[in-house]
Amino acid sequence: MADQSQATVAYGVFNETSDHEKRVALTPDIVTRLKKSGVTCLIEKGAGEAALYSDDDYAKAGAKVVDRDGVIAGAQAFGFVGRPDDALIAKLPKGSWVIGMLGSFTDKDYVESLNQHGLVAVAIEKLPRQLSSAQSMDEMTSQNSVMGYKAALVAANEYGAFFPMMTTAAGTIRPAKVLVLGAGIAGLQAIATARRLGAVVTAYDVRPASKNEVLSLGAKFLDLGLDFSKGQGEGGYARALTPEEQAQQQAAVDQKAAGFDVIITTAKVPGRKPPVLLTKAGVDGLKRGAVIVDCAASDLGGNVPGSVPEQTIVTDNGVKIIGAPTLSSEVSTTASNLLARNVADVLTHFIRDGKLSVDLSEELDDKMVVAGRPAQAAADAQADAAKKA
Amino acid sequence: MADQSQATVAYGVFNETSDHEKRVALTPDIVTRLKKSGVTCLIEKGAGEAALYSDDDYAKAGAKVVDRDGVIAGAQAFGFVGRPDDALIAKLPKGSWVIGMLGSFTDKDYVESLNQHGLVAVAIEKLPRQLSSAQSMDEMTSQNSVMGYKAALVAANEYGAFFPMMTTAAGTIRPAKVLVLGAGIAGLQAIATARRLGAVVTAYDVRPASKNEVLSLGAKFLDLGLDFSKGQGEGGYARALTPEEQAQQQAAVDQKAAGFDVIITTAKVPGRKPPVLLTKAGVDGLKRGAVIVDCAASDLGGNVPGSVPEQTIVTDNGVKIIGAPTLSSEVSTTASNLLARNVADVLTHFIRDGKLSVDLSEELDDKMVVAGRPAQAAADAQADAAKKA
Repeated sequence: MADQSQATVAYGVFNETSDHEKRVALTPDIVTRLKKSGVTCLIEKGAGEAALYSDDDYAKAGAKVVDRDGVIAGAQAFGFVGRPDDALIAKLPKGSWVIGMLGSFTDKDYVESLNQHGLVAVAIEKLPRQLSSAQSMDEMTSQNSVMGYKAALVAANEYGAFFPMMTTAAGTIRPAKVLVLGAGIAGLQAIATARRLGAVVTAYDVRPASKNEVLSLGAKFLDLGLDFSKGQGEGGYARALTPEEQAQQQAAVDQKAAGFDVIITTAKVPGRKPPVLLTKAGVDGLKRGAVIVDCAASDLGGNVPGSVPEQTIVTDNGVKIIGAPTLSSEVSTTASNLLARNVADVLTHFIRDGKLSVDLSEELDDKMVVAGRPAQAAADAQADAAKKA
Repeated sequence: MADQSQATVAYGVFNETSDHEKRVALTPDIVTRLKKSGVTCLIEKGAGEAALYSDDDYAKAGAKVVDRDGVIAGAQAFGFVGRPDDALIAKLPKGSWVIGMLGSFTDKDYVESLNQHGLVAVAIEKLPRQLSSAQSMDEMTSQNSVMGYKAALVAANEYGAFFPMMTTAAGTIRPAKVLVLGAGIAGLQAIATARRLGAVVTAYDVRPASKNEVLSLGAKFLDLGLDFSKGQGEGGYARALTPEEQAQQQAAVDQKAAGFDVIITTAKVPGRKPPVLLTKAGVDGLKRGAVIVDCAASDLGGNVPGSVPEQTIVTDNGVKIIGAPTLSSEVSTTASNLLARNVADVLTHFIRDGKLSVDLSEELDDKMVVAGRPAQAAADAQADAAKKA
């Protein structure tokens, strides 16, 4: 990698802390860290407030705290928790860089608009996570870890009984039985946290490889008596099941679920409708007082029918369904700490000889740069030349 | 103890699940248990709903599920989470028994009204907790345990960062620093739960004896450089400090508190104004994002100035103060399980030769029976006789 100490890149981050987004793509620690790489930081006023970083904190770390237009005018690269909206895209100078979760797997129009505005776009969702050099950039892992931790906390907090066993003079309270559906990063962290709290934890995932990970955390693996092999999808995410597999899985999970007090579902598939992991029949079979935390709740549906984003629904049979799609944002300080580091490491990867550049011979560049690719720039130039001729 | 199998006592429990009270003084398990002692149970319709017990659950266990008047008419002894209000007292038949947390330490008028209505009143707050026979009746211990557990959960859930340390490719997240003020039953359970979640926990209590209990749970004991010996009050509760001691303690605690992320205060003193354990200066010294859970919040004040019961206040310097006086009620199923057993064991203690009776030669009877005491009944009879003469 090239010497970055000569870099003169200016990096800008905006206030995205609206609605359910409390995270920020830059923290004061990362300002200091980037300074060592020659990157100067600009941050919009109030951007860190919901993550408990004040403008002062940023200024002390050496960032310029300015208004939105000041960030736009002063920076060449922009980092996001999510992605810029159309209005902001229109304002960003041609040739500047956009780094974030761009939704490029499903939203081709959006990527095309970045291209048309002459922006270089780096899609973190396309990070080749298996590369060891990519680990510190892995925002999916860091944010899903936070989500899994918080999912277990929310479940424990909403459940009307104890997670741990307690033996008292007035009798013994049995530990809660927790079922985690989806044993990716979030699921594993939920397992670990529920076990920390003393619950008896069982987990299930369609990827056979997940079984050993579940067992290594001291949890049980739910035996459905079914085989969904070849379940590992691209990028380490669970693939969507076939309709027939889903039906088989659902029937078995629904039946087994009845024995649990708390169910945490974590099968988010970025940009796609989440798989249903517990049907209405499964929910109806649960005990009064059971709690479901559905981390995949979305407008497209969730892992559990009836879950509504940011709401707690109580069914007729007394089951609480908590639609919790933004849990990592709720742990805003920790989530921002990790995310800011991830995005900054993506940024510095692209700084070569003190300048931002794309090298498509590197797998990371080839996978992640979704707009403003050099070859495309060349093709565009050719097309322009052809027009003029 | 006398043979209780011949008992023909009918025990009634009402619906107290209003406002912030979700607990119930009788659970289906205890119905079954009391049946073996010859006690039949009557419960008001819907009484267990908020603790997730349905009328059906009670009926299946063998209780009669009736309306409020049916409970009044059918039972000789009545168990409470709290205590009956004036309207209910007026309806209870003369000579019937009332068992609950009666507030007898501070509310003499209330006790007098029970007396005047000819009720036998057993005050659980006066339980001689040091007796081994009293352990299974110890509602203060059981409910404070639940409170401490929930206080740690609420704190973790409100805090914007992780409780546990986490080492990731994107850096290490340091564990939260939690300070527990008041190391009674609730404080010790809060310590244990915060430690389960991976926080680094420090605690403080004015009772020197609590230091070893804190250390035995793996927490640190806050060294203030002050000596408040002779701090152990009656019944194992912390005594109120003298004004001078309070000022000394506050100054030291306020200063030390600044280094903590989360503060849990648990110094409830039944029936009295809670001691202030952190002054406004202490709160103002905390970091932005710090969380305080004040279990003693009340209309008389709390352990922290500015705490409001059932509300979360965010101070100008970004500290969350959560007024949480009813946390045991929030874990309604576990809290009711334990409480119902406690109250039932008080009830059966007083069943001798199949009947309810008071034996003032027993310490437990002497301490707990605050109205309708045999000597008093005799004295009342004398007074009546004197009047008639």
